Amino acid sequence: MSRLPLEKKVLNENDRIAAGLRERFERSRVFCLNFISSPGAGKTSLLERTLERFAPSERVALLTGDIQTDNDAKRLARFGFPVKQITTGGTCHLDARMIERALADWPLESLDTLLIENVGNLVCPSSYDLGEAAKVVVLSVAEGEDKPLKYPAIFFKAELMVLNKTDLLPYVSFDLGQARAAALQVHPGIEIVELSCKTGEGFDHWIAWLARRRGLALNQ
Amino acid sequence: MSRLPLEKKVLNENDRIAAGLRERFERSRVFCLNFISSPGAGKTSLLERTLERFAPSERVALLTGDIQTDNDAKRLARFGFPVKQITTGGTCHLDARMIERALADWPLESLDTLLIENVGNLVCPSSYDLGEAAKVVVLSVAEGEDKPLKYPAIFFKAELMVLNKTDLLPYVSFDLGQARAAALQVHPGIEIVELSCKTGEGFDHWIAWLARRRGLALNQ
Repeated sequence: MSRLPLEKKVLNENDRIAAGLRERFERSRVFCLNFISSPGAGKTSLLERTLERFAPSERVALLTGDIQTDNDAKRLARFGFPVKQITTGGTCHLDARMIERALADWPLESLDTLLIENVGNLVCPSSYDLGEAAKVVVLSVAEGEDKPLKYPAIFFKAELMVLNKTDLLPYVSFDLGQARAAALQVHPGIEIVELSCKTGEGFDHWIAWLARRRGLALNQ
Repeated sequence: MSRLPLEKKVLNENDRIAAGLRERFERSRVFCLNFISSPGAGKTSLLERTLERFAPSERVALLTGDIQTDNDAKRLARFGFPVKQITTGGTCHLDARMIERALADWPLESLDTLLIENVGNLVCPSSYDLGEAAKVVVLSVAEGEDKPLKYPAIFFKAELMVLNKTDLLPYVSFDLGQARAAALQVHPGIEIVELSCKTGEGFDHWIAWLARRRGLALNQ
């Protein structure tokens, strides 16, 4: 029994809705990023530290996906920016329809930046376009440097790889050079930022990338 | 557009094949485990350390699933036991049909134990029965103690949670008590073993569980 035709139909339908979202984001000048990683690689921590850097006047909002619990939305809400939890109830990824629904009562005109934290899964979310300007993949150094080769789709599609938890480097066997080489082998154009959400080391590089990429998107 | 009916059909078909596998395993007295975790939680390391403990006369074989690369099969093959890589080419989980195919030229009568390392994914593999006697979920302390609540399906279905990388406990904020409580909240009957594949701490508990569970399966 072949699943391919139906999968293709679902993905085509998703692409159609995502294209509509992308058009709306561009028209309303909203810069949107889609964060993807394994469970526990540090997406929520990255977003927490990022929100700390934003002035209260920044027009940023967040959507955070999880199979169960609204833990992440609670963690993120304390910075005062609008946050909405999307609980997928078993589904292993966010899709464009979920984003469309979540945005139904948020006027895009009130936003400059929309940060979407996907379900923790290095595989399935890479197939679902959410209308974002760019995908960001987060890899923790505790996961091993071979992950870009073993899960190539998301490293191929992401513009940026954030190598998180560099504070753990002395305690894990993780070869930064090999990790960089693996990511570049899969996606020669990928940008790479190494940082620790815990110590803040390298965080300025991420903030600089974010500002630069946002400028690029909004000046298009 | 609803995906549910087709998903159900696919899962029913998988269950049918898995039931056939389970019957064959029981008839041939093969004890089969299905290891599931996030990418980089340490499934392959756990299997490496486990194979080190087996005498060369043990009739154990391994199937290891990955989207791309045969890195894991290479790591595991050096212990001299039969290992086969299943490269899914994009699919986010192993299914029963893949196991059936991989076993086509392995006479089950020559085996006592079959260890299956699933694709690194805490979500999708939990839905696909492979005919195993039990599922084992591996969680690294670098991933955070809330994971059983956020990804409940696999913690509900696994008989054992292996909490790996305890050597990192001094360097990460991970509350062992909370992790245990979260797992038990989702699945009151789950057994829990804490260990470090790196230092070997706690490993005897895992080996004892394995021996006990195998005895239970084969005396049924």
